[in-house]
Amino acid sequence: MKALVYHGPSNAKWEEKEAPKLLKPSDAIVRIVKTTICGTDLHILKGDVPAVTDGRTLGHEGIGIIEEVGTSVQQFKKGDKVIISCITACGSCSYCKKSLYAHCKDGGWILGHKIDGTQAEYVRIPHADNSLYHLPEGLDEESALMLSDILPTGFEIGVLNGQVQPGQTVAIVGAGPIGMAALLTAQFYAPGRIIMVDTDESRLETAKRFGATDTINPAKQDVKSVIDQLTDGVGVDVAIECVGVEPTFAICQQIIAPGGHIANVGVHGKSVELHLEDLWIKNITLTTGLVNTSSTPMLLKSCCAKTIEPNKLVTHHFALNDIEQAYKVFGHAAQEKAMKVVLSNS
Amino acid sequence: MKALVYHGPSNAKWEEKEAPKLLKPSDAIVRIVKTTICGTDLHILKGDVPAVTDGRTLGHEGIGIIEEVGTSVQQFKKGDKVIISCITACGSCSYCKKSLYAHCKDGGWILGHKIDGTQAEYVRIPHADNSLYHLPEGLDEESALMLSDILPTGFEIGVLNGQVQPGQTVAIVGAGPIGMAALLTAQFYAPGRIIMVDTDESRLETAKRFGATDTINPAKQDVKSVIDQLTDGVGVDVAIECVGVEPTFAICQQIIAPGGHIANVGVHGKSVELHLEDLWIKNITLTTGLVNTSSTPMLLKSCCAKTIEPNKLVTHHFALNDIEQAYKVFGHAAQEKAMKVVLSNS
Amino acid sequence: MKALVYHGPSNAKWEEKEAPKLLKPSDAIVRIVKTTICGTDLHILKGDVPAVTDGRTLGHEGIGIIEEVGTSVQQFKKGDKVIISCITACGSCSYCKKSLYAHCKDGGWILGHKIDGTQAEYVRIPHADNSLYHLPEGLDEESALMLSDILPTGFEIGVLNGQVQPGQTVAIVGAGPIGMAALLTAQFYAPGRIIMVDTDESRLETAKRFGATDTINPAKQDVKSVIDQLTDGVGVDVAIECVGVEPTFAICQQIIAPGGHIANVGVHGKSVELHLEDLWIKNITLTTGLVNTSSTPMLLKSCCAKTIEPNKLVTHHFALNDIEQAYKVFGHAAQEKAMKVVLSNS
Amino acid sequence: MKALVYHGPSNAKWEEKEAPKLLKPSDAIVRIVKTTICGTDLHILKGDVPAVTDGRTLGHEGIGIIEEVGTSVQQFKKGDKVIISCITACGSCSYCKKSLYAHCKDGGWILGHKIDGTQAEYVRIPHADNSLYHLPEGLDEESALMLSDILPTGFEIGVLNGQVQPGQTVAIVGAGPIGMAALLTAQFYAPGRIIMVDTDESRLETAKRFGATDTINPAKQDVKSVIDQLTDGVGVDVAIECVGVEPTFAICQQIIAPGGHIANVGVHGKSVELHLEDLWIKNITLTTGLVNTSSTPMLLKSCCAKTIEPNKLVTHHFALNDIEQAYKVFGHAAQEKAMKVVLSNS
Ligand SMILES: [Zn+2]
Ligand SMILES: [Zn+2]
Ligand SMILES: [Zn+2]
Ligand SMILES: [Zn+2]
Ligand SMILES: [Zn+2]
Ligand SMILES: [Zn+2]
Ligand SMILES: [Zn+2]
Ligand SMILES: [Zn+2]
Repeated sequence: MKALVYHGPSNAKWEEKEAPKLLKPSDAIVRIVKTTICGTDLHILKGDVPAVTDGRTLGHEGIGIIEEVGTSVQQFKKGDKVIISCITACGSCSYCKKSLYAHCKDGGWILGHKIDGTQAEYVRIPHADNSLYHLPEGLDEESALMLSDILPTGFEIGVLNGQVQPGQTVAIVGAGPIGMAALLTAQFYAPGRIIMVDTDESRLETAKRFGATDTINPAKQDVKSVIDQLTDGVGVDVAIECVGVEPTFAICQQIIAPGGHIANVGVHGKSVELHLEDLWIKNITLTTGLVNTSSTPMLLKSCCAKTIEPNKLVTHHFALNDIEQAYKVFGHAAQEKAMKVVLSNS
Repeated sequence: MKALVYHGPSNAKWEEKEAPKLLKPSDAIVRIVKTTICGTDLHILKGDVPAVTDGRTLGHEGIGIIEEVGTSVQQFKKGDKVIISCITACGSCSYCKKSLYAHCKDGGWILGHKIDGTQAEYVRIPHADNSLYHLPEGLDEESALMLSDILPTGFEIGVLNGQVQPGQTVAIVGAGPIGMAALLTAQFYAPGRIIMVDTDESRLETAKRFGATDTINPAKQDVKSVIDQLTDGVGVDVAIECVGVEPTFAICQQIIAPGGHIANVGVHGKSVELHLEDLWIKNITLTTGLVNTSSTPMLLKSCCAKTIEPNKLVTHHFALNDIEQAYKVFGHAAQEKAMKVVLSNS
Repeated sequence: MKALVYHGPSNAKWEEKEAPKLLKPSDAIVRIVKTTICGTDLHILKGDVPAVTDGRTLGHEGIGIIEEVGTSVQQFKKGDKVIISCITACGSCSYCKKSLYAHCKDGGWILGHKIDGTQAEYVRIPHADNSLYHLPEGLDEESALMLSDILPTGFEIGVLNGQVQPGQTVAIVGAGPIGMAALLTAQFYAPGRIIMVDTDESRLETAKRFGATDTINPAKQDVKSVIDQLTDGVGVDVAIECVGVEPTFAICQQIIAPGGHIANVGVHGKSVELHLEDLWIKNITLTTGLVNTSSTPMLLKSCCAKTIEPNKLVTHHFALNDIEQAYKVFGHAAQEKAMKVVLSNS
Repeated sequence: MKALVYHGPSNAKWEEKEAPKLLKPSDAIVRIVKTTICGTDLHILKGDVPAVTDGRTLGHEGIGIIEEVGTSVQQFKKGDKVIISCITACGSCSYCKKSLYAHCKDGGWILGHKIDGTQAEYVRIPHADNSLYHLPEGLDEESALMLSDILPTGFEIGVLNGQVQPGQTVAIVGAGPIGMAALLTAQFYAPGRIIMVDTDESRLETAKRFGATDTINPAKQDVKSVIDQLTDGVGVDVAIECVGVEPTFAICQQIIAPGGHIANVGVHGKSVELHLEDLWIKNITLTTGLVNTSSTPMLLKSCCAKTIEPNKLVTHHFALNDIEQAYKVFGHAAQEKAMKVVLSNS
């Protein structure tokens, strides 16, 4: 089969590779139908993720058709159409029993990281019963693809951790795919105001179309001043950090109201300054996290009911064979006005 | 001034009466701008509520303008436009400290019940600081009027108690004003399906317009069978009872899924049969309650943000002077296709 | 091997039977070390549980040593000492994903019910990874045995569902093994008062020793009057029903405070009268349920830390061979002053 | 009357001052019976709190007897024995309605800060109905005094924010009065292990007596190593920071388990480094806050039920007249082995 194989920094090739085989009774082999590229994949390609070594197939998102299942797999059989969760869960370790699948002792984020991933014609999925989801009839494939990672990440780590509630004012800092996923899923809770903060005007316009009530461009405006104006000086109830650098995290600290929630979704490479000299007295809650994908069943129902349409996050389409080209486009997301790119295995 | 005064069963008159005066430093006198009639008022008029005695001014909903405040009132002053909460809260008793304002030791539901109410030109509001809300500029009066009782009741006792969540299936049994308020506010949480159950086809049509995804008429269909079909035999996640009689409560018990929530909003005059022989094993939660109006600040923000537009519950308009006529119309709500009737004090 | 086999009402024999074998890769065979008898077993023996048919081995509680595991079992291996949960969980169905193991589509309460149970020398445990727990070194066997059913049932369905909080007043109606398990685990949350209600004076004395602050004997005292006295007429914050008949359920309704929680743990054979004419306005929450055993990891830690010592529930000891005699004693629990009887497989 | 009056850094005198008078209808005048000194008072005395200006009476904790109440006070009357909450709450602003009394728009922490405080023979308490609590008969005065600040602070900001649960492992960093209050109140939730971290051996010994299961002295041991040993490398479920400096906050970050809670209680004067490069993936929750004293009713019940005995925090006794001497002792708390000092107004 063909797969996108990592060979060190800035070097990934769409090349021939032996197809995966069942290794354990709980494994499944899935033939990829559609996959996509994540911001994390770009970090890997830069060489920022040392656990990814030469020869690894990249990718942790995808939908496909079950090709074969191990003897203990119960929920799936050959021919089933499935969503591959970016998080692998054994379903029975101490973390899985608390639905903290991100920290599964025999799983977590391993696809395209510690084991071969989904940017290939076939992929082996360990612990299939807890790591795959049936793709319901009537749900379009591109919406389903967004359930691998981006939508549950924005929802669980942004919206649920941030405890968005009806009528509240929410700021989302960073209008990339994760920020947009937070924007879409925040609307499950009918906040009164969703303020999107980003320096890319095109993304801000998209955010407006996707439901943001207000936008702020920190390159042009002082975020805190604008938010003070919008909120009578109170600040926002929920601030969702979707970038992963100090300046955006700093914004969240400046704009949060007493009693508010800061939900960090961004992947940080460095420590940040936490202004406890101001925040100790403000009764705030700050959360972090890798997605558990425990919300996937709920999101699936919502997608089927069309209360959310995540396929609108898709901006570009490629054949799976053209994945190297797709990386180039996604690598210049701002210029290309790219959000999520879909790769289809014909 | 004029007021609608109760003089025993089936006997209420719009008549001259002495205007209310401040009795305590925490009182306010409010000049009524708009008021409305509640299902409870009809019960009172039938003589079903013994605490209402001869001479009582009826009504517990309304908006108005502050005429005068007692010396300890801090949040309001003469001329402020306010929403009158149907629940009076002292703000400092043991129940108020738990936000259980319905059970306030010096308040609760007293307007138009134990003290004179809002169906009058003026009303005295005890504990004004915790029983009135500023009517924000830009919010229309009829939406604001719905915040006195109907909207928080449907929301707190139906939707919040029922713990409606994104993607879930919700059944609302009873499509009267309270059921409609539950229908509107349930949508704050983006359920995947909202099934409205009622025998009045016209109300079912209205429910569809207001966001119900499905409707069932128990006079024509077997509710349980239809719901089994809609839910693959699982049942509903949340059942909200908005009538207050045994047959509708029975429906809720039949259709609830394992792990589901039954939220009783209806006012019951008799005991009901609880099928613990079936339900003991189903891990269900059943809740009851009188509204606390603790959600009013949240609902106000939502109304201002237009994430909800409760003025659509209003079907009829009268001058306050014509309140006797308005009672007649509201008393035949089904024929008159009446939901909420608004009475305006010119 | 030997097993206690059901042969119709009032007819269960300790007799020779073929030892269980692995049927699926996720199965384990456990050699029983200790087992016990549950109130449910007595119901079965009376013929009240039609799903139990001739030839079934009884029992759903036990600890033992793993004899053999299927090829997909990951958390356990031959020789491991384990606690057998009364609830079997596949770990991957829609209910298991919500930790509603009681409703597992391929599990739930099946041991000694739909498949052969634990009152035998060996038992087959389906879905071993999610249905067994390692018995930690240092934890005594009899405490561990209480974790199969009785302790998580009292805790989850009584205490957690009832939402017991520090300082609160809790009433437990029924001082049998389940009531005692609720009594012990309620103390995790430091309630201010725990009132045990039962007609058996000996059990009330035991309850006092186990931490009840007050006891009421409904045969001698009016429960509502005593509780009104103890609570200044307010009622209890939490009422836990541990019997399963109408009169005890009625008591819970009479004594509950506004805003309070009634947690039904008792197994009911008939419907009961629910006084919604009183309760509709009281903002109460009523819960039901079969145990999920989702709290077992937490309870295990608590047992190891000795913040609870459930072995004190054990009153009688027998050799497993003498199980027929043990049933006789447990069948006359009041006379025999029996709570939990332990059967040891030498 | 006499009062401890601030006259600039390091200068507070027990001197004659005019007795306070009622200024508003919601005020009460309380004759102090007992008061105590808080760590915050020492900060004020150093000149660290600019809002405290020359002439201010210090102190925000105390119990006393009502001398006089304003015309709108309803819950209290002359002669009532009361606990003075360190937080003043108007009961009706937007924050008070969310029980965020710490941020009350006409209150919060004002006693001994923005208005005259409790280290005096008499004190004026604004918003008496929501800022005082009846001292129940049978509760000892010294326990009651601990309810002004120290006990609710440790409980709300440490234990409740940290979401301590049965069986969990809790670390408390800092064994001063606040840390000890967290230690006592954490036991409401029966954690399996409470590890106290401090460099003062004498305080660690006290912590053991008060219920700590383990102690660590960072001057002698590597905290992370010891905790890794105690927790099989997992870390603690809850870390409660009770000092307010970077090194202790750093410890909390090092020892927290995936999914864990860091509850910051310490008052920080400077920003700290937050290791988001490690924590972003750990699904942790970090909370901050000034006490709301919303838990006071619950704590009162617990004190009355003797499930907690906070009087054990008291180490020294003085006559109120000797308050200058008491400050000296409390200012050298470590040497003097002082925890809380009680000042009695004879
Ligand atoms: Zn990703
Ligand atoms: Zn796992
Ligand atoms: Zn009403
Ligand atoms: Zn009250
Ligand atoms: Zn049992
Ligand atoms: Zn299952
Ligand atoms: Zn203090
Ligand atoms: Zn306030």
